[in-house]
Amino acid sequence: MLQRPRGTRDFAPEEMTARRALETRLRATVQSFGYNEIATPTFEHLELFVNKSGADITKQLYNFKDKGERDITLRPELTAPVMRFYFSDLKMRPKPLKIFYFGNCFRYERPQDGRYREFWQFGAEIIGVADKHYDNAELLNLAMSCLRASGLKGFLMRVGHVGILKAVLVSLGLGPEQQKYAMPLIDKGEYQGLEDYLKEQRLTPQDISYLLETLQQKMTLDELIEGKDALSRRLERSKDAQQALADFYEMVKLIKEMGVSPVVIDLGIARGLDYYTGMVFEVDLQELGAEKQVCGGGAYNLEELFEVKERMDATGFAIGFDRVMLGLTRQNYVFERPFLDAFVIPMSRECLTNAIKVLGQIHGSGLRGDMELAGRGMGKSIKHAEALNAGFAVIIGEDELKKGVASVKDLAKRAQEEVALDDVAAHILSKKAK
Amino acid sequence: MLQRPRGTRDFAPEEMTARRALETRLRATVQSFGYNEIATPTFEHLELFVNKSGADITKQLYNFKDKGERDITLRPELTAPVMRFYFSDLKMRPKPLKIFYFGNCFRYERPQDGRYREFWQFGAEIIGVADKHYDNAELLNLAMSCLRASGLKGFLMRVGHVGILKAVLVSLGLGPEQQKYAMPLIDKGEYQGLEDYLKEQRLTPQDISYLLETLQQKMTLDELIEGKDALSRRLERSKDAQQALADFYEMVKLIKEMGVSPVVIDLGIARGLDYYTGMVFEVDLQELGAEKQVCGGGAYNLEELFEVKERMDATGFAIGFDRVMLGLTRQNYVFERPFLDAFVIPMSRECLTNAIKVLGQIHGSGLRGDMELAGRGMGKSIKHAEALNAGFAVIIGEDELKKGVASVKDLAKRAQEEVALDDVAAHILSKKAK
Repeated sequence: MLQRPRGTRDFAPEEMTARRALETRLRATVQSFGYNEIATPTFEHLELFVNKSGADITKQLYNFKDKGERDITLRPELTAPVMRFYFSDLKMRPKPLKIFYFGNCFRYERPQDGRYREFWQFGAEIIGVADKHYDNAELLNLAMSCLRASGLKGFLMRVGHVGILKAVLVSLGLGPEQQKYAMPLIDKGEYQGLEDYLKEQRLTPQDISYLLETLQQKMTLDELIEGKDALSRRLERSKDAQQALADFYEMVKLIKEMGVSPVVIDLGIARGLDYYTGMVFEVDLQELGAEKQVCGGGAYNLEELFEVKERMDATGFAIGFDRVMLGLTRQNYVFERPFLDAFVIPMSRECLTNAIKVLGQIHGSGLRGDMELAGRGMGKSIKHAEALNAGFAVIIGEDELKKGVASVKDLAKRAQEEVALDDVAAHILSKKAK
Repeated sequence: MLQRPRGTRDFAPEEMTARRALETRLRATVQSFGYNEIATPTFEHLELFVNKSGADITKQLYNFKDKGERDITLRPELTAPVMRFYFSDLKMRPKPLKIFYFGNCFRYERPQDGRYREFWQFGAEIIGVADKHYDNAELLNLAMSCLRASGLKGFLMRVGHVGILKAVLVSLGLGPEQQKYAMPLIDKGEYQGLEDYLKEQRLTPQDISYLLETLQQKMTLDELIEGKDALSRRLERSKDAQQALADFYEMVKLIKEMGVSPVVIDLGIARGLDYYTGMVFEVDLQELGAEKQVCGGGAYNLEELFEVKERMDATGFAIGFDRVMLGLTRQNYVFERPFLDAFVIPMSRECLTNAIKVLGQIHGSGLRGDMELAGRGMGKSIKHAEALNAGFAVIIGEDELKKGVASVKDLAKRAQEEVALDDVAAHILSKKAK
């Protein structure tokens, strides 16, 4: 028997109903903030991602040669494709350009809970920043609004600033290669590995402690706002770090005004990738364990990738759609189930013409209706209607037809009444409205 | 500059808004008929499609070896994946199982108008037929209801029956291999090629004319219903063909009762693929030229593919989503554009706190709102609001704040009024409702 490929999933009706409901809520949220949807192809030239993330990334890619010998890959993420689209077709649009996307991505990784080889990302980007403090704050507000709209509970946002972090590393005398080595260790919180590395690089014990303490600065928004001067003094070895902190402070004041919550400041957030330039953040749902990150993003700059001259700052986030679904499932979130409004049961072949008319009326009213045709008896037909999560059974037999009616049975209330054939849809609509 | 891969597309906000609107209409239509959505992975084991369509199909596939040396392919269509999912996970569900899908498919073909290397199909299937006449009729009704809901005009459904066709070929003494050669010629309407082939196969001129005339039988539903006996006499050389006609007749009476229109009977429809067993149909939009087919389907049987013992009849269709979009565009169909309800313009940095509050109020009311932050002057801000297709500009300056109001400008009517800061969202909601 043919199986689906390892690490992929099929989605049954109940799952798709839930996934579409989540998608609809996320879309409504970003649209209420004035973001418009775009889409890019499922595969891209391999070069796009190698340029962005380095050749190492091909280990995780579904890359291949197409029949024209082009190096192609299924996309592993959506920021690079969105920026490619921006530079090729959207760059003349008024700034800031606020866009969102919902798409599938592919990574060849060991399948495990919350990690699939095909997975979905829902993301938003502001390209061409108008006011970097406000735009970054808005993005954080939007990310949290999306997660709140999803129905998820108990997530926590952590916000940092790689500009501060990088300036501190520079102030300790670390060059670009050393920073490149250190940042992933910081990102993963591997402080012992970081300490060992910095010792090898002959940093003084004092400098190493200073860095480790700085990375472990965690505070509330109010603590940052009130303690800004103390933090600035801690950064006094680097004017750049102090300037980055001043920027960060302006943004933090705005997210407080916007009511973004719950948020903590965490200067140890590094994000894995080079292209982040300023504010960075992650949102975690602890109960997901190793795959706890449900959202991440920050301010970035990708223009080098596209060999364009103009500087184009952007800020964006991506929500791990499957992880949010997993979180909702773990939290026993109750999604709408697939349902029918009416299940029409013609008692015999002679009643079919009238049953077809009534069903047409039901469809024409925007109600969801289906018909019994498997020749089951009445009891089994009602059971089937219940299995389809139907609100009403509409029974049409010889007796009913003599009177020009159908017997409409409310399957929840177990109440049955006779309704004129022409009024069945209106009757169900009025009952449904109550 | 990196380009998108040849034959693929990016979709800008206007296009995505239109595509999502079409998707929403199609989904609402099939849901009103009681169909529930499923989804399958974007790639499958190559074997699935080779088994279904023959090794020749690999020429058109995006197939490759994954990093585990598995033969994988991007899906070229969705019926085989849906049936794979059915046999692995859904087969214990009550019958008939009515499902739909909306997904992207991939074919390595020469890109041209209406033909892309990544394209979308919207389809529905009934698996485990309860009453084959009714189920087939419902599918036709559903396909036409979907196309009508799309907003498209001027399409025409042609319905035939491969059971009749195959029985006629058998009655002329053609074996399985000869049928396999003849069917694609019939499908493409290459009657000259068919005639040449049948001459080579030493059919008599009389038999060849008989077949060609039968293939070219085209009639209205009423003509078939009234002329059934004459057509049956034409098929008198084959009891199987007459039985297939009798089945077809029952179904045609039902689609007439359902009001499916416009439809013609066309016995020359063969569909390319082996697995169709009975009713087959296509829907054309002439103005799309060579790529005129916007929908196609029929009754089929795929269980051999999955090495299962039980017979499982199914019937389904797929709508070429991109062709419907192309048709709507050609017909100048007016889709909703991306829009904003309100564009908030703080006149200075001092007004930002209040502007943030008003914008939060707007988002909280489910309205779409954004804010001016690029530091443009008033005139340019209003122009930007218009470029964003905003309904209202909400101006908050020092003068307004002294009075506790915002100036709310209706951008269509060019009328402006002062509204208390707390009432801005309610004001816009009430204006919008009118």
